[in-house]
Amino acid sequence: MSYFPEVQDPVPCEGPDSRNPLAFKYYNASQLVAGKSMADHLRFAVAYWHTFKGPGTDIFGSATFERPWNTGATPLEIAEKTLDAAFEFVHKLGLQYYCFHDRDIAPEGETFAESCDNLDHIIALAAEKQAATGIKLLWGTANLFSNPRYAHGAATSPDAHVFAYAAGQVQHAIAATHRLGGENYVFWGGREGYETLLNTDLKAEQDHLARFLHLAVDYAKSIGFTGQFLIEPKPCEPMKHQYDSDAAACLNFLRSYDLMDQFKLNIECNHATLAGHTFQHDLSVASAAGRLGSVDANRGDMLLGWDTDQFPTDIYDAVYAMLVILRQGGLGSGGLNFDAKPRRGSFDTVDLFHAHIGAMDTFAHGLLIAQALIDERPLDDEIDERYSSWNDELGQSILAGNESFDSLEAWIREHGEATPRSGRQELLENIVNTYIR
Amino acid sequence: MSYFPEVQDPVPCEGPDSRNPLAFKYYNASQLVAGKSMADHLRFAVAYWHTFKGPGTDIFGSATFERPWNTGATPLEIAEKTLDAAFEFVHKLGLQYYCFHDRDIAPEGETFAESCDNLDHIIALAAEKQAATGIKLLWGTANLFSNPRYAHGAATSPDAHVFAYAAGQVQHAIAATHRLGGENYVFWGGREGYETLLNTDLKAEQDHLARFLHLAVDYAKSIGFTGQFLIEPKPCEPMKHQYDSDAAACLNFLRSYDLMDQFKLNIECNHATLAGHTFQHDLSVASAAGRLGSVDANRGDMLLGWDTDQFPTDIYDAVYAMLVILRQGGLGSGGLNFDAKPRRGSFDTVDLFHAHIGAMDTFAHGLLIAQALIDERPLDDEIDERYSSWNDELGQSILAGNESFDSLEAWIREHGEATPRSGRQELLENIVNTYIR
Amino acid sequence: MSYFPEVQDPVPCEGPDSRNPLAFKYYNASQLVAGKSMADHLRFAVAYWHTFKGPGTDIFGSATFERPWNTGATPLEIAEKTLDAAFEFVHKLGLQYYCFHDRDIAPEGETFAESCDNLDHIIALAAEKQAATGIKLLWGTANLFSNPRYAHGAATSPDAHVFAYAAGQVQHAIAATHRLGGENYVFWGGREGYETLLNTDLKAEQDHLARFLHLAVDYAKSIGFTGQFLIEPKPCEPMKHQYDSDAAACLNFLRSYDLMDQFKLNIECNHATLAGHTFQHDLSVASAAGRLGSVDANRGDMLLGWDTDQFPTDIYDAVYAMLVILRQGGLGSGGLNFDAKPRRGSFDTVDLFHAHIGAMDTFAHGLLIAQALIDERPLDDEIDERYSSWNDELGQSILAGNESFDSLEAWIREHGEATPRSGRQELLENIVNTYIR
Amino acid sequence: MSYFPEVQDPVPCEGPDSRNPLAFKYYNASQLVAGKSMADHLRFAVAYWHTFKGPGTDIFGSATFERPWNTGATPLEIAEKTLDAAFEFVHKLGLQYYCFHDRDIAPEGETFAESCDNLDHIIALAAEKQAATGIKLLWGTANLFSNPRYAHGAATSPDAHVFAYAAGQVQHAIAATHRLGGENYVFWGGREGYETLLNTDLKAEQDHLARFLHLAVDYAKSIGFTGQFLIEPKPCEPMKHQYDSDAAACLNFLRSYDLMDQFKLNIECNHATLAGHTFQHDLSVASAAGRLGSVDANRGDMLLGWDTDQFPTDIYDAVYAMLVILRQGGLGSGGLNFDAKPRRGSFDTVDLFHAHIGAMDTFAHGLLIAQALIDERPLDDEIDERYSSWNDELGQSILAGNESFDSLEAWIREHGEATPRSGRQELLENIVNTYIR
Repeated sequence: MSYFPEVQDPVPCEGPDSRNPLAFKYYNASQLVAGKSMADHLRFAVAYWHTFKGPGTDIFGSATFERPWNTGATPLEIAEKTLDAAFEFVHKLGLQYYCFHDRDIAPEGETFAESCDNLDHIIALAAEKQAATGIKLLWGTANLFSNPRYAHGAATSPDAHVFAYAAGQVQHAIAATHRLGGENYVFWGGREGYETLLNTDLKAEQDHLARFLHLAVDYAKSIGFTGQFLIEPKPCEPMKHQYDSDAAACLNFLRSYDLMDQFKLNIECNHATLAGHTFQHDLSVASAAGRLGSVDANRGDMLLGWDTDQFPTDIYDAVYAMLVILRQGGLGSGGLNFDAKPRRGSFDTVDLFHAHIGAMDTFAHGLLIAQALIDERPLDDEIDERYSSWNDELGQSILAGNESFDSLEAWIREHGEATPRSGRQELLENIVNTYIR
Repeated sequence: MSYFPEVQDPVPCEGPDSRNPLAFKYYNASQLVAGKSMADHLRFAVAYWHTFKGPGTDIFGSATFERPWNTGATPLEIAEKTLDAAFEFVHKLGLQYYCFHDRDIAPEGETFAESCDNLDHIIALAAEKQAATGIKLLWGTANLFSNPRYAHGAATSPDAHVFAYAAGQVQHAIAATHRLGGENYVFWGGREGYETLLNTDLKAEQDHLARFLHLAVDYAKSIGFTGQFLIEPKPCEPMKHQYDSDAAACLNFLRSYDLMDQFKLNIECNHATLAGHTFQHDLSVASAAGRLGSVDANRGDMLLGWDTDQFPTDIYDAVYAMLVILRQGGLGSGGLNFDAKPRRGSFDTVDLFHAHIGAMDTFAHGLLIAQALIDERPLDDEIDERYSSWNDELGQSILAGNESFDSLEAWIREHGEATPRSGRQELLENIVNTYIR
Repeated sequence: MSYFPEVQDPVPCEGPDSRNPLAFKYYNASQLVAGKSMADHLRFAVAYWHTFKGPGTDIFGSATFERPWNTGATPLEIAEKTLDAAFEFVHKLGLQYYCFHDRDIAPEGETFAESCDNLDHIIALAAEKQAATGIKLLWGTANLFSNPRYAHGAATSPDAHVFAYAAGQVQHAIAATHRLGGENYVFWGGREGYETLLNTDLKAEQDHLARFLHLAVDYAKSIGFTGQFLIEPKPCEPMKHQYDSDAAACLNFLRSYDLMDQFKLNIECNHATLAGHTFQHDLSVASAAGRLGSVDANRGDMLLGWDTDQFPTDIYDAVYAMLVILRQGGLGSGGLNFDAKPRRGSFDTVDLFHAHIGAMDTFAHGLLIAQALIDERPLDDEIDERYSSWNDELGQSILAGNESFDSLEAWIREHGEATPRSGRQELLENIVNTYIR
Repeated sequence: MSYFPEVQDPVPCEGPDSRNPLAFKYYNASQLVAGKSMADHLRFAVAYWHTFKGPGTDIFGSATFERPWNTGATPLEIAEKTLDAAFEFVHKLGLQYYCFHDRDIAPEGETFAESCDNLDHIIALAAEKQAATGIKLLWGTANLFSNPRYAHGAATSPDAHVFAYAAGQVQHAIAATHRLGGENYVFWGGREGYETLLNTDLKAEQDHLARFLHLAVDYAKSIGFTGQFLIEPKPCEPMKHQYDSDAAACLNFLRSYDLMDQFKLNIECNHATLAGHTFQHDLSVASAAGRLGSVDANRGDMLLGWDTDQFPTDIYDAVYAMLVILRQGGLGSGGLNFDAKPRRGSFDTVDLFHAHIGAMDTFAHGLLIAQALIDERPLDDEIDERYSSWNDELGQSILAGNESFDSLEAWIREHGEATPRSGRQELLENIVNTYIR
C-alpha cells in the first residue's frame, strides 16, 4: 500500500526549465560537484517529527493535517504505520537520511518502562527498514521538552528527580540511536533555561547540565557508540531564555565544563536568526572553532519573533551556508536536516513533497553557486588581497610574537598613517548576484 | 568661575518627599546599607564623553548642545576648560569617579606624536585635579572607533599597519590610566567585527584581537599597572556584528585564547538588550563565571534597535542589577558608570544634573530595595526550597559523581514520576512590587 | 462545593505593608479616587479562556494545568462545572466582570446546530449565575481562529462558504452577548490576514472583512443590541500579518469602510508592543481619535517576539495607561480585561489568584499614582508651558486659518530663529519616579 | 573636467555573462518589457544627499568619504562643484532622474534670507544642467530634521515659531521643485513625532501637521505646481516615534484630515521593515488604497534596528516590489529613488558606481522576472482559483449585499462545513525560485 501514490518513485530531476512541481530542477543526487556527488555534499535528512507527526497546530489553532498514517487502533499501530509512510516518503525523495526524537518515532507509554518497550519495538522495525532500503539515520535525540515533567527543565530541572528521569530517557535514546547506526546524537535543550531569574539559580543549573552531558559521554563510551554528540543552540522559545543561546554561548559552555572534545554544534538557521545572528554567522562561528558538526536547514521569517521553521527557499541563505560548509571540507558525519514544517494552511500530503523538493533544489542550486564562487575565486581573491599586509614584514612579525606595544608604538611614530582601502561590500554583493542564475 | 552656578554644591539629599528637581530623594552617600556606605556600594562614575563632550547630534541631526566649556581658541584650551567643568560637575554631584576615552579628554592631533603630547598635557592637569579634590579615575580607555583609520577595525583591521597604530594608541591610553591611578582599563571593540562576511576572515580577525590583548597584558605588566582589564560586550552598532557580542561570547573568546585570568567584563544594560538579553541576564552570566567586573548603568528603549544610551530610571532594572551585584559581594574595583546621554532635545546644562540625579536616585532606591529583599529573603527562600532536592540523597549522589545513566535509569524504573512544583513566577513578581515603595 | 477553598471570600485588602500573598495591598473596590470608586475606575474583568480553560500548553509542550473543573463525563458537564468555578473565582476576587469566547464558555459540537445548542444551554445557566451574583458580562466574542475551517481566515477566507460559517457563528455569539446584557462585543481577527502575499488578494479580503462588519452592525440593530462594538488590533501571530495590525491601521480601515461610528478599539498591551509601539502609544492613538473603548491589560516580554500574555505587574505601564484613561474620562462601557495567563510552570490553581491579585494591585497602584500626577500637575504644567506659543498671536492665527505659506515666510524673514526650549525628558522621568512609592 | 574618469560614459550593458564590475548585466534602458522600455518601467533616480553629500559618518565615527567636489573656498563653490559631479554621475549611469533636499543641493546660510538666496542660485544652475542633459527632477523636498531648531519637530513643534519657520522653508522648496519641473514633492517627517509622551500633546501635534499640509496644498495651487505630493512613512529614527509610522498610519492620517485626494505615499523598503512590515506589504497597502505614488528603493539589514539604507541587491525584494508596481500599471509620476548609501568602509568614488549599477541590475532583473510571472500566470492562476467561490452564487450574493447574518446562518445550517483547500505556500515559493535565473 502506498501513502503517496501521486508521487513518482523516485522524484525525477528534470532540470531548471521544468515546470513540473513534483520534479527536481537542480538536485541530481549522483551529479558530481568538485569530484563529489551532490548527495554526498548535501547529506539531506528528513525530520520525522515535523514531516510525519506534525499536526498543523499553532498556538491559536487546532490540527489541520489529517495524515492517513496517524490513525489507528493503538499508539503502536499508528507508530508502525508512520514508519511505513516515512520510509516510503524518504525513498521517493531519494533522501539518504532521517532524524528522530524518541517520542515521535515511538509513543510515550503510561510508565517509563512502557515508553522504553515502545521505543524498542519500533527501533527493531526501523532497523529492518533501514536494512531493506539503505536509508540511514543521521541522528537521534530525546524529546525532553513536551512532557509536563520537564516544564522547569530536564537536566536543569530544580528537581533532581527530574534530572534522573531525563537521564533514564536519554540512556534509551542513545541506545536506540546506536542500534540504528546513527551517525550523530543531538542535544537540544528546549527547557534548559529559565522563565524568570527570580526563581532561578543559573550557575547551579548550568553545573547540572554539564554533569548530565558528562554522564552522556560516559554512557556512549560504555556501549561503544562513536557517533558525534551535537549541541543545538537556540536563544528562547519555549523558554524565556535557553542556556545554549547561540554558537558562542554553547562553545563557552563546552569550554568551561571541559566538553569541547566531545561535542560539536548543530546550527539551525531559524535559531541563529532568533538569536540576532545570520545563519552564516553562526555557521562561521562554529566552523572557526572547528565545531560545526551538522545543520538544521530551515528558515525563519525575519519579521516574526518565533521559530517559524519554514522550509528553506532563500537562495542567498543556501549559497552562504554552502560556502561555509565547502570551505571546511564538508560536514563530516553531519548533514542538512530539514527541521521545517509546511505552513498550517498547507495541509495536503502533497505539500510535504513540494516543501522538500523546493528545499532540496534550493540547496542544490546553492551548492552549485557556492562551488563556482570557490572555483572562480571572486570573493577569495578580494579577501586575500584585503588581508595581504599580514604576509608582509610587519604582519608576520606581529604574528610571530616579535612585537610589543612599545615596538609597535615606535613603528607608528616612524610610519604614521596607513593607506585606507575600501571594503567593497557593494561590489561583492553584486558579484554574488551575477552567480545567482 | 563656575559652569553650573545654578546648582548647589554639593547637591543635597532631601528625602523621598522632596519635589526639588535638584535634590536627591534616595542617594545619601554616607548612609549605611548592610554596613557599607551607599557611595561604596554604588561607586558611581560620570562618563566624560557623553556628559562633557556629547554634542547632541543624532544620525539625522546636527549638534544641539552648546556647552560654554566647548569653545575656545585651540583644541587644548577647550580640553582644559572641559576638565574644569568636569571636576566641578563631578564634585557637585558628590560622585567619586569618572571615566574617559583618550580622545575625549584630550584632542587628537595632526600626528600620532601630537596626539600623545596632547594626552600627556591633559593627564598632568587631571592628576592635579584628582589630588586636589579626591575624585578618582574608575577607568580609562582608548577611542579606537571614531577615526576613519579604524573603519575596518583596529586590532581586527585587515591591515597590520592599523593594528600597529591601535597598539601605539592603547599603549598611551594604558599609561595615562596608570598615571592617574585608574582602577580599571576597558576595551570596547566598537569596530572589532564586520560589516559583511563576504570580505571577512573571521577566524584571522579574532586571532589578531587575542594577540592584541595579550600584548596589552604584557605591557601593563611591564609598567606595573595592576588595574583590572575589562571587556565590554556589544552585539552591533556601529558594525553589523561585533565579536564581543554578549557576555557569553566574550567569555568564550577569553577562554579560547587563554585570557580568562586577565580580564573581567564591563556589562552595559543597553548592550545586553541589543543582544536580546535582559540587563540582569548578562550581569548574571558574567557573575556566574566570576567575571563581572564593572557596569555601564544606562538603559535602552526596548522598542528601538539602536543604542539609545538613556539615563537609567527604571526601578526594576536597578533592583535586579543590584541583586546580582550584592549577591556577588560588590563590584570590587569596578563601579556603576553612567554611560548615558540626555536626549538631543534636553540641551540645557541643567538637564545634565537632572539626568544624573535621577539615575543616582534610581540606583540608590534600587540598592535599598535589593538589600531588603536579601535581608528578608522572600526570593532566596523560594529558590532554596525550589532546589532543595539537590541536598537530598539522590541530588547529592549525582553531584558527587556517584551516578551514571545506568544507575539513574534503574532509579527511575523504581521511583517513576516526580511531583510537580509550581515555579511561582507571578507571586515572585508581586513580591518585588510590594518592595517598590 | 468550592474549587478554591484555600482562598478567603472575598480576598481582603490589607494595605501596602501586608505580606499576605492572598490579600490586596492597593486594590480596595469601594475606595474613592477623585470621587469615583476604584471598582468603577478600573472595571476589571477576568478572561474566561485563559483563566478557566487555559491548559498550560505551549508550542513545544503539552498541558500542565490540571483543573478539577475541566474533567467530566461530557463536554457539557465540563462546561457547567467550569461555569461554577468561574463565578466562584470572580466572586472571591471581588471582580465585577468577565469576558468570554463562544467556544470557551460552551463546547463546539459535531455540527453547527449542536454548537448553537451548546451555547444556548450554557448561556441560560450563565444568566442565572449573573442574576444571583451581580457579576456582569463586559464583553463576548466568537472564536474564529481555532477551528481548522478558519485556517485561511474567517471573514477574509478565500472561500465564501467559510465567510458564511463565520457569519452564522457570530450571529449566535452576538445574540448570546445580548442575552447576558454584555456591555460590548469584540472582534479580534486572529486569522484575518495572510501567511504569504503570494497567494493573497489583500484588497478583496479587506473588502470582505468590511462587508462582514457591516452585516454585524445590521444584525445588532435588528435585535436591539446596543453594546459597543470593538476591534482588537494585533500585528501578527498566529498569522504572518493581520489586517488589524495596530490602532492606526484599524482606524484607517474603519474610516475607509465607513465604520468609524459603529466601532471603538480594544487595545491590548502585548499586541501594541508586538506592533512596535508602547502600550501607552496605542492607547493614546485610539484615545486621540475618540475611539478608545476598552483595554486588554496584560504585558509581553519586550525581548520575546510572541504574545506572552503575562499578567501586568509593571507599575510604569499601569501608570501610563491610567493617565490616558483618566484623561479621557474613563473607559465608558469598556474595562480592563486581564487577557493574561499564568506561566506554564505556574500550574497550581492558587497561581491564578496570585496572578489576578498582583495585576489588580498593579493597576490600583497605577490609578492612585496617575490621579496624583493629574491632581498635582507636574506633567500637565510642563506640557501647557511647552505648547504655550499656540495660545499667542502667531499660534492662534495659524490655528484660525489666517496664515499661509506666504504670510509665514514673510513672518520668518522678519523674526528669524526661535528660542530653543529643552524637552526635559529626564526631569519628567524623575518626577514619575518620585510618585512611584 | 571629469570627476569619474575611470567610468565609461555611458556605462554599457554587457549582459548576464559579463564579469565587468562597471557594466550592467540586466539593465538596458531601451529594452522593451511588455511594450514599455526598462527606463520607463523603472524610472530610477539618484538621491543627491547620500550619493553626493554623504560623508561616510556613523553614530560612532567621523567622515570617511573624501569627495573631490566637496572641497572649495565657499559653501556655494562647493555646491556648484557638487552639481557638476552630480550631473556627470547621473549621465554616466544613464539615469533619467534625481531627487534632492533643499539643504543638500544648496547650503544653509547664516540667515533665512541667505538660505533662500543660496537655493535660488543653485536651482538656476540646475535648471541649465537639466536643459542641457535632459536629466529631470523626480522630486524635491525640504530638510526639516537636521537643524537644531527642528529638534522637537517642524510642523509638529510645540513652538508655533518653528512651525512658521518650517512653512517658510517649505514654501521655497516647493517653489524650487516647481521651477525645475519636479514631478513630485515629498514630505518625510523625520522630526514629526515624539521622544516621550510625558511631554507631548499627540493630538495637537497631529492637528498642526494637518494644518501644515493643507497650507502646502494651498500654496502649490497658488503657484500652479501640479506635481504629486507624497508622504514617506517611517516608524522611528531619529525620533522614538514618528506619526507617519507606516502606510496604514499615513492613510489614516490623510483620511482623518481630509487630505486623501492631495497625497500619495512614497514607500521605502527599509522604513517598512523598521515598522515590522515587508517592503511588499507596505507597497501593497498603499497600492490597494490607490495611493502608491513612488518608491525609495533600498534595503535594511533585517537583524539591525536602524535605517541602514543599503543599496538594494536582494532579488526577491525586487521581484515582489515590481509585481506590485506592474500590477497597478506603473508608478505614474513616481519612480524608484535609490535612497541608499555605500557602507562607511566603501569610501572610494568608484564604490558609488558599483552600488548604483548593482541596484539597477537587481531591479532590472526583478522587472524581467516579475513580468514573466505576470505573463505566465503561475501565481495569478493560483489566486484566481483560490478565490473562485466569490464568483459563485453565494459569494456573488454576499458581495451584492443580498445576505444578512440571518440568511447566512440559515445557509450554514443547511450546508455545513466547507471543503478545505491548501494555501500552497511552499509550492508558490518554489515557483518563484524557478523564475530566478
